Amino acid sequence: MDNGKASDMIRTGICQENGLTNGFHPPETDIGSCNALGLNGTCNNACGNCSSSSGGGENFHHLQEDVHNNGSPPKRCRLRRRMDSGKKNRPPFPWFGMDIGGTLVKLVYFEPKDITAEEEQEEVESLKSIRRYLTSNVAYGDTGIRDVHLELKNLTMCGRKGNLHFIRFPTHDMLGFIQMGRDKNFSSLHTTLCATGGGAYKFEDDFRTVANLELQKLDELDCLIQGLLYVDSVGFNGRPECFFFENPSEPESENCVKRTCCLDNPFPMLLVNIGSGVSVLAVYSKDNYKRITGTSLGGGTFLGLCCLLTGCETFEEALEMAAKGDSSNVDKLVKDIYGGDYERFGLQGSAVASSFGHMMSKEKRDSISKEDLARATLVTITNNIGSIARMCAVNEKIERVVFVGNFLRINTVSTKLLAYAMDFWSKGQLKALFLEHEGYFGAVGAFLELLKMTDDL
Amino acid sequence: MDNGKASDMIRTGICQENGLTNGFHPPETDIGSCNALGLNGTCNNACGNCSSSSGGGENFHHLQEDVHNNGSPPKRCRLRRRMDSGKKNRPPFPWFGMDIGGTLVKLVYFEPKDITAEEEQEEVESLKSIRRYLTSNVAYGDTGIRDVHLELKNLTMCGRKGNLHFIRFPTHDMLGFIQMGRDKNFSSLHTTLCATGGGAYKFEDDFRTVANLELQKLDELDCLIQGLLYVDSVGFNGRPECFFFENPSEPESENCVKRTCCLDNPFPMLLVNIGSGVSVLAVYSKDNYKRITGTSLGGGTFLGLCCLLTGCETFEEALEMAAKGDSSNVDKLVKDIYGGDYERFGLQGSAVASSFGHMMSKEKRDSISKEDLARATLVTITNNIGSIARMCAVNEKIERVVFVGNFLRINTVSTKLLAYAMDFWSKGQLKALFLEHEGYFGAVGAFLELLKMTDDL
Repeated sequence: MDNGKASDMIRTGICQENGLTNGFHPPETDIGSCNALGLNGTCNNACGNCSSSSGGGENFHHLQEDVHNNGSPPKRCRLRRRMDSGKKNRPPFPWFGMDIGGTLVKLVYFEPKDITAEEEQEEVESLKSIRRYLTSNVAYGDTGIRDVHLELKNLTMCGRKGNLHFIRFPTHDMLGFIQMGRDKNFSSLHTTLCATGGGAYKFEDDFRTVANLELQKLDELDCLIQGLLYVDSVGFNGRPECFFFENPSEPESENCVKRTCCLDNPFPMLLVNIGSGVSVLAVYSKDNYKRITGTSLGGGTFLGLCCLLTGCETFEEALEMAAKGDSSNVDKLVKDIYGGDYERFGLQGSAVASSFGHMMSKEKRDSISKEDLARATLVTITNNIGSIARMCAVNEKIERVVFVGNFLRINTVSTKLLAYAMDFWSKGQLKALFLEHEGYFGAVGAFLELLKMTDDL
Repeated sequence: MDNGKASDMIRTGICQENGLTNGFHPPETDIGSCNALGLNGTCNNACGNCSSSSGGGENFHHLQEDVHNNGSPPKRCRLRRRMDSGKKNRPPFPWFGMDIGGTLVKLVYFEPKDITAEEEQEEVESLKSIRRYLTSNVAYGDTGIRDVHLELKNLTMCGRKGNLHFIRFPTHDMLGFIQMGRDKNFSSLHTTLCATGGGAYKFEDDFRTVANLELQKLDELDCLIQGLLYVDSVGFNGRPECFFFENPSEPESENCVKRTCCLDNPFPMLLVNIGSGVSVLAVYSKDNYKRITGTSLGGGTFLGLCCLLTGCETFEEALEMAAKGDSSNVDKLVKDIYGGDYERFGLQGSAVASSFGHMMSKEKRDSISKEDLARATLVTITNNIGSIARMCAVNEKIERVVFVGNFLRINTVSTKLLAYAMDFWSKGQLKALFLEHEGYFGAVGAFLELLKMTDDL
């Protein structure tokens, strides 16, 4: 597939039975391509998972051309092999999607649960071994983790039923992962490795030279949006994927409760992706978005500063400390400067006037705890993101602000603070929304691209 | 003066001969009140410094009423005393303006240079002592500093010729300053102490109870704008007050040169005040502005974090270290994640993707210097402010972005970085401007309010 076609493909619909049952309907004007196209260029309904009946149009024409033109011997060979292994017109197993970020690699893996005895017999040992290794463990090596609680069960994807697993490991272990791919002879499986995130570019040569693997590189923001819309559409094992906080104006009270909701009509939405850094997107439809701005003060800043200031080593440790700290010992509040509120411009005495502003005083530095510093770091980074998001939302006239990214993982302090900030500063006009699979949408988007790759490789 | 009148007064013109000669013309619709009004309610031209001939109108009426209605014995008494001491209808010496911020107190002091022998003889000892103390020293106590290089010479203000001095000391020494006011019997001088900044509110009771002084409290953003427009109008001892950087796109090269300019037609301007925290104002005319947003990540954050991370104690030390450091050892750049540029969204490889993003790695933490940390802190705070300012400018459709506040004092790294950021991210559409008296405009604005206070107290 050349780049031009890859980017064309990104804009097309995806194969998703589950999507249909949960309200993820592509707009009328969209192509909604069925990736289970037969060789004759018509929809192979045997896959049973076309999300749209509009199988024609420009994209269909592309696919048809690809099928008709794949006359070169190697291409024909690959195509046959794939159909053989999967017994359908779909990519060969294993099915992975990968998002190689600045801090974490996110991996989604589809475990087929409908393997027939015949298939099991034919399955090559390396493929079986991957499946068993990934699904029977929850930790891999020293740093790989499977987020078992996020597993999506009983999905039907391109005619196969199975579960989607969510795995992460630190990006600094990427070379080890690639070497494992070489040692396990991953390249013999002839799967396409769809990868997004900066690391798809940075590690491309390593994948090729070390493990003889060609990456299918995909844009991270495209993947993010497609992955998010897909997971929201299939839902979270019968529950909604999306949630918000009721009574966000009372973040400390028990009235501030997490409530699920549906993103049935999600557009326009402001999408704030908080990874190592932050990107802010205005999403107008599934294929139409723009990156409005970003900030380098993101999750990496929180963790980096926390490590420096408190001596902690992990995100979990940093959050645990932050949960116990009091940032008002570290920050200069409006009341520290004014003695009370700055009424004229609506700034409450309890608002932060200067983050870390107390820390220029030796006396204050001597009186604070590491927990206070962790909390102040968390509050500073979160409020800054909230403030930027609010400005973007106001300027773009978008009321729905969706926060995603692994910064929000196990991070109730920040989610509640963002919910509060959106509500308070907009006088109730803006609503902060969150998604359960917070950091995995890029990887899911990359995975969905794999399912689109049938005949044109 | 009641509060209503105080806020009315803020909107009026000011007595400024120098202003006229430098293009600070109040708009036609403005009142341009002359503060040297005689008791008969007409302009006392002997003061020779009316900036406008429109002595009538609503404000004039206020003043006239005040004069006619000040029949209460104490008021009449104060008025006579003031006229006696100054020999004109203007406030009695000493003339101060004060801005009590979150970190620094800024004080401007007018030193009359046209004192006659007769005046000198009549001058009370405490007044003389203040004048000599302030003008013959450049440092006061342990922490007070006179910024001699900023002195404005040969101003004519309310008919008096003299120099304006700029003095600062840390806000944590405020109580010592108030005690000094008590010890020197400052209250016997019956001057009005015009003060702005949060500390005008926070320390009001202390001024009253400790030193028997009543503050005239003024809004800090009002004062900031009036002070800025005034200083720009009088110029910096024959040179322009304002400057920018030529070739901001090459901040490291010697082509990036500081150039002076005039704010002849300054509106609309985006005014970014970087003190302990940051306020962003859109200023449409001298009397019409709004506070768009702010961020708590300001100068106090830079200094507070630097103290924590490097063990430094002062702003000067922090900047000195930052000048020698390399932030790319601390920050994760786009190229650290992508291996190069993120071309699709125009992010260069050298752009910061995640501030302090490298610091989650122990290995990296062990390999960096304090100077690197100081530099990264400076770059992080500066870029965040630049990014927020740019968004505001774009949204308000304002091309001129004026940065002020003491964060920029002796801080070439930040000024050049802001100039670069405005230019680069706006593709040359936005222009960053700076002012020589960076942090003193609030104090000047408070001082100007004093000069407006003649008959209505």
